[in-house]
Amino acid sequence: MHRCPEQQKKSEMNTNSVVQAIRWNGECLFLLDQRKLPTETLEMEFRDAIGVAAAIRDMVVRGAPAIGVAAAYGGALSVAQHAGKVNWRAAVEADLQALEGARPTAVNLAWAVAQVREQLDANDDDPLLAVRGLAEQIHAADIAANQRMGEFGAALIEHRCQVLTHCNAGALATAGYGTALGVIRSAYAQGKIDRVFADETRPWLQGSRLTAWELLQDGIPVTLIADGAAAWAMGQGEIRWVIVGADRVAANGDVANKIGTYAVAVSARYHGVRVMVAAPTSTIDVDCEDGDAIPIEQRSADELFGLAGARHAALGADAWNPVFDVTPVALVDALVTEKGVILQPDKAKIAALLANP
Amino acid sequence: MHRCPEQQKKSEMNTNSVVQAIRWNGECLFLLDQRKLPTETLEMEFRDAIGVAAAIRDMVVRGAPAIGVAAAYGGALSVAQHAGKVNWRAAVEADLQALEGARPTAVNLAWAVAQVREQLDANDDDPLLAVRGLAEQIHAADIAANQRMGEFGAALIEHRCQVLTHCNAGALATAGYGTALGVIRSAYAQGKIDRVFADETRPWLQGSRLTAWELLQDGIPVTLIADGAAAWAMGQGEIRWVIVGADRVAANGDVANKIGTYAVAVSARYHGVRVMVAAPTSTIDVDCEDGDAIPIEQRSADELFGLAGARHAALGADAWNPVFDVTPVALVDALVTEKGVILQPDKAKIAALLANP
Repeated sequence: MHRCPEQQKKSEMNTNSVVQAIRWNGECLFLLDQRKLPTETLEMEFRDAIGVAAAIRDMVVRGAPAIGVAAAYGGALSVAQHAGKVNWRAAVEADLQALEGARPTAVNLAWAVAQVREQLDANDDDPLLAVRGLAEQIHAADIAANQRMGEFGAALIEHRCQVLTHCNAGALATAGYGTALGVIRSAYAQGKIDRVFADETRPWLQGSRLTAWELLQDGIPVTLIADGAAAWAMGQGEIRWVIVGADRVAANGDVANKIGTYAVAVSARYHGVRVMVAAPTSTIDVDCEDGDAIPIEQRSADELFGLAGARHAALGADAWNPVFDVTPVALVDALVTEKGVILQPDKAKIAALLANP
Repeated sequence: MHRCPEQQKKSEMNTNSVVQAIRWNGECLFLLDQRKLPTETLEMEFRDAIGVAAAIRDMVVRGAPAIGVAAAYGGALSVAQHAGKVNWRAAVEADLQALEGARPTAVNLAWAVAQVREQLDANDDDPLLAVRGLAEQIHAADIAANQRMGEFGAALIEHRCQVLTHCNAGALATAGYGTALGVIRSAYAQGKIDRVFADETRPWLQGSRLTAWELLQDGIPVTLIADGAAAWAMGQGEIRWVIVGADRVAANGDVANKIGTYAVAVSARYHGVRVMVAAPTSTIDVDCEDGDAIPIEQRSADELFGLAGARHAALGADAWNPVFDVTPVALVDALVTEKGVILQPDKAKIAALLANP
């Protein structure tokens, strides 16, 4: 990983501009270091795929669509580094495997890497041009997909209500605009949302660190709550919709997303609150029959034992830190994709949607 | 508050001994500072009621039964300070009001203060002897009640299972042994519990800081999880019982307890996991018809914005920090008191139990 200190500057973000987690200047990839938000807005520069793989693993960049886009650029950086040298295809393949293996749950990563491989196989003449073009196209397509999902999802929301989101499925988790937060942005712009409740989302605090920060950039009222308070907020009649993203959607519609999503969905069903999952079709994995086939990443217990380097948990305790869970499709009221909306999703409806051009 | 630096020593706790949150030497009250656990075990000494009221408000001592016992000793300290002086009864009454108003949700506080008032009204000759005796009796009775609840609750648990607890309803939250953790201690001693899942319990982290620490002192296997992971653990079939304490039980059996308890109870019902609430009869407030009548304490948003003085949340975000919620009695499978167990509790069963001598 090239960490170029002179370039790890505080980015001069205009708070009125849309948050940009991923930037590409044609040669280098710049990632906003999401471990440091909201205290610092720091961009890191990457010139090789191994650095990008490490950035994905270490959560410099996170969110299923964002790590897909980052991995595609990682592929382009790999081709730029190796193409033309002896055995360059093997070197690129090793990089692609490192990218693919950086995190297990989000399928967008494997999807993006598979697309890079296809381009490489199809383009002997100028593989760099091909793969760079692919990455730029995936990047642009993700933003466009989010904007379409925003419109589709917003159409489902009643006038003037409060909604709840879990984790961060925003501009920071995507190429821009966001999936769940894209829906929220569109609905807020249409005057349909008064306020967003954001679960703080332990252990990584994506809600308090990222979602609250991102919504504040756009002036959308956000109220932070403890994860344990979401059910109580629903019980008070405060919430009309739960709107979340996804890391992988199985062929039957089961949804892997940040740990705690399942708890929120169970509670939503109990209270008659509807659940909307906003995810591009690149997040749907038809090779996964159902949620049982989705690998669930376990991360270090240290994420639970402390915060920002300070340990608060009792020494000697064991911990269980699955960072995703699976919400069964029966608890999902609407699956919003860039190709359209599926109400009460199931395997047949999802297959039909994917078959559309 | 007398904070006597020379006495704020690290207590030389024998890790084999039962954790002691409250100690009384006949003249002074010693409280283990629960804000500092598990990093430091520090006792604070108190010689007046105003200091005890501040300690309750600031959560040096927490847990409904524990703050009831501390308040009774606060009453004794007040009588010791004022009795015999001009207008001493007014001075004591002012102290009692400060104690009573320190926190709103746990009824044990008001219950203990009401008992102090009764003793004062009934004993003109030696009010100090009477109130000190009362406090010592409340203290001893709470430990005895917890041990009885431990036996009663353990009898409900099947052989060798895993259970989940939320917050800390242990020795630290009581005069000793604990309510929910008392049941867990008894059941573990009988070989009925293999492992305890402890929700970390944001925002104050009673689970990771206190419950994990307390169970480790007794060698009971404990696995820490994020609050959002409890439903997922239940979905994996890991949990047989949820066992929690209570801050106030309404006449109809609705249970006010730490924020997040309701979420766990909703999820337990969804998964067929049973919910046990362990609480002494001093926690039952027959003057509260149902949960709607229980005042829910809201604490500072700062508890959500950061941890241990370090802020992680986005600046400018709003927060909602109710620190208790109400679990409707319909979600409670067993209410365990020192007078006996009520399965599927309701108003009539509770009234009948309380009418028993």
